Amino acid sequence: MPADTRNTKAATTEKRFLAPFRGEATWPPPIWLMRQAGRYLPEYRATRAKAGSFLKLCYNPELAAEVTLQPIRRYGFDAAILFSDILVVPDALGQKLEFLEGEGPRLEPIREVADLTRLDPGMAEAKLAPVIETVTRIRQDLPKETALIGFCGAPWTVATYMVEGQGSSDQAKARLWAYRDEEGFGQLIDILIDTSIDYLSRQVEAGADCLQIFDTWAGSLPDDEFERWVIDPTRRIREALRARHPNIPVIGFPRGAGPSGTWYVAETGVDGIGCDTATPPFMMSEAYEDEDVVVQGNLDPLLLVAGGERLDDRVDEILELMEGQRFIFNLGHGIVPETPPENVARLVERVRKVGA
Amino acid sequence: MPADTRNTKAATTEKRFLAPFRGEATWPPPIWLMRQAGRYLPEYRATRAKAGSFLKLCYNPELAAEVTLQPIRRYGFDAAILFSDILVVPDALGQKLEFLEGEGPRLEPIREVADLTRLDPGMAEAKLAPVIETVTRIRQDLPKETALIGFCGAPWTVATYMVEGQGSSDQAKARLWAYRDEEGFGQLIDILIDTSIDYLSRQVEAGADCLQIFDTWAGSLPDDEFERWVIDPTRRIREALRARHPNIPVIGFPRGAGPSGTWYVAETGVDGIGCDTATPPFMMSEAYEDEDVVVQGNLDPLLLVAGGERLDDRVDEILELMEGQRFIFNLGHGIVPETPPENVARLVERVRKVGA
Repeated sequence: MPADTRNTKAATTEKRFLAPFRGEATWPPPIWLMRQAGRYLPEYRATRAKAGSFLKLCYNPELAAEVTLQPIRRYGFDAAILFSDILVVPDALGQKLEFLEGEGPRLEPIREVADLTRLDPGMAEAKLAPVIETVTRIRQDLPKETALIGFCGAPWTVATYMVEGQGSSDQAKARLWAYRDEEGFGQLIDILIDTSIDYLSRQVEAGADCLQIFDTWAGSLPDDEFERWVIDPTRRIREALRARHPNIPVIGFPRGAGPSGTWYVAETGVDGIGCDTATPPFMMSEAYEDEDVVVQGNLDPLLLVAGGERLDDRVDEILELMEGQRFIFNLGHGIVPETPPENVARLVERVRKVGA
Repeated sequence: MPADTRNTKAATTEKRFLAPFRGEATWPPPIWLMRQAGRYLPEYRATRAKAGSFLKLCYNPELAAEVTLQPIRRYGFDAAILFSDILVVPDALGQKLEFLEGEGPRLEPIREVADLTRLDPGMAEAKLAPVIETVTRIRQDLPKETALIGFCGAPWTVATYMVEGQGSSDQAKARLWAYRDEEGFGQLIDILIDTSIDYLSRQVEAGADCLQIFDTWAGSLPDDEFERWVIDPTRRIREALRARHPNIPVIGFPRGAGPSGTWYVAETGVDGIGCDTATPPFMMSEAYEDEDVVVQGNLDPLLLVAGGERLDDRVDEILELMEGQRFIFNLGHGIVPETPPENVARLVERVRKVGA
C-alpha cells in the first residue's frame, strides 16, 4: 500500500490507542497485549508475592495499580488494562471464590434457579469498590498518551464458571442448565448483565477510556445458543453503556466464535472485535471490511514464547494484511507465563518500526 | 425443495450410508453418532466391566466387536464405527499408555526429538493386530445393509497427547515444540502419518467400508500451523489410501477448524467433512456447496442429553437446511455418558420420519 493512503493524523492525537475508534487507520497500529500485566514479568511476580494471593492482589488498589502500570513502564504499550479478574463479579455477588495455586479458580457451584438466592446483587457495588479505586489510581499515574482499558467477563463466560464451580473444557453443566431451564438460567444471565453494566459504568466514571468484554467460552455454543447467551447479553450491555457513556468504545472478544464473528459484530454493536489465534489473518482483514468496527488481534501467544524469525515473519504478515485498516495489534489470547520478556520487547519494536 | 428433486435411488442400494459418497443425496439422510458405542448404554457398561479396563476392551476383539454392534442392534444406525481409541497408535508405537478412571489417558511424554528413539514403528503392526481382528469380527456379524467405519486420530491430535502426556486445554507443549523445532516435531508427525496409513489400510482389508480421521484439536492452530500440521498430514494419508483403496471414502473431522473447513476439504481431498457443534447449520449447508464433499453433522450432544421439543426442533432445522444435499446426520462431537438412551431412539425416529 503506498504511503500516501495511510492515515497518520492519529500520531498527533493525545491517545493513539483511541484513534481507530474515531475512524482513523493509524499506522503503525496501536499495540497492547491481553494479560500484559502478568506472571511473565519478574516485577509482577514480586508484587504478587507481596499481596499474598492472586485474589488479594485483585482487591488491593495500590498493588493492582502497580502491576497494571508495570508493562507500560517496560514496553510503552498504547493501552494499559486494569489488573483484575473476570471472577471478581461472582465474588462480589456473594459466590464464595478462591484461587488454588496451580489449579485455578474454585467457586461454590450454582446449579439451578433455587441457588440464585445465594447471590446478593445489592452488595456488588461495595465489594467491587476496591477495583474502582484501582482504576482511579491507574488513571492518576498513567502517562497522558496511554489509554486505560476497563473490562469484565461476558455473562455467558462468567456463568460457565459459576455453574461448573471451576474451569472446564466443555462448559457442559452451564450448557445443560441453559437447555433444560432457559428461563432459570436466563435469570442468572440477567443478574450478570445488570451487574456488568454498573461495574463497567463505574470503571468509565473512574477513568477508563475503553472497555473490553471477554467471552472466552463463546465458541462452545451452537448458533441458536450463541444468539441467546452471547449476542443478546452483549448487545444489552453495549446499549446500556452507550446510553450512559456514548463516547466510550467497547471491544468484544468472543473467543472461538469463528465464522459467527461478523454476525456478533453486526448484532451486538461493539466498536471493536478481538480476533482469536485460530482466525486466519487474511480473514481478519477481509471478514470485517463491511462492518463499522475496529479489528484487534491476533498473534499466537505461543509464537511469542518461541520468538526468533518465525515470530518476526508472522508479525510482518499480520501487519501487511492489516495495513490501511482500523487495527489494534494484540495477541489472539492472553500472554502465557513462560513468555521471555525480551520477546515482548522485540515484538513491540517490530510493530512500531513499520510506520517509521 | 420439491419431492421430485430428491434422489431416492440410494434406498435401493445395499448400504444407504455409502450412497452420498457415490453422489446421491439420499433422503432421509443416513445417521450414525460419534461415540455411539459408549457409556450411555447399559449393555456397554456391562461389557466394559467384563473387560476389566478401557484399554483391555480396546484390545479384546470379541468384546470390542460386541460393543461396536450394541448400538446397531438397539437403534439400527446406518453405520457402525469400530470401537477403539485414537491412542492405541502411540501405545502400539511403544509409548506407555494407561487410562486413569475419571481422569483420562496418561502417557510417558515425548518432548523432544531425542525421545523419538523410544518409539518403535516396526512393532505397531503386531500390537494393532487385535484391533484388526475386531474389524474382521464386526464385519462378519454386521447386517449387510450396515456400513462399517474404521478410524484413526489425525497425526496432529495424536501428537498433542503424546507430547503433553495427557489431555490439555491448549495443547501448548506440542505447539511450542512445533514452533521451536519444526523439523524434529515433523519427524514425530511423519511416524504417525506412516503408521496411520498402514493401520487404516489394514482396517479396510479387514472389512471397513469408510474411514474417519478425528482431528479433535485442529482448532487450536493458527492458519500457518494448521496448513503444516493438519492439512498436509491429512492430505498425505488421504493420497496414500487412495492409491491402495481407491473406492473407500475418507471423512475428515477437523474439530474447531471453523472458517478453515472449506480450505481443509479442498486441500486434503477428503470425501466427507464432519462439522462440529459450533458450525451454524446454515453454514454447514452453504459453505461446502462448491466442494465435491459429503457433509456430516452436527447436532449438539448436550441437546441430545436435554431432549424434548428443543431437540425435535433443532433436528428439524438441520434436516430442512440440509435437504437435497449429500448429507449424513451425526452429532457435532461425541455422545456423552449422561445421554438418556431413549433420547437417541427419539432422534433416530425423527430423522427417519422425514423421508417417509
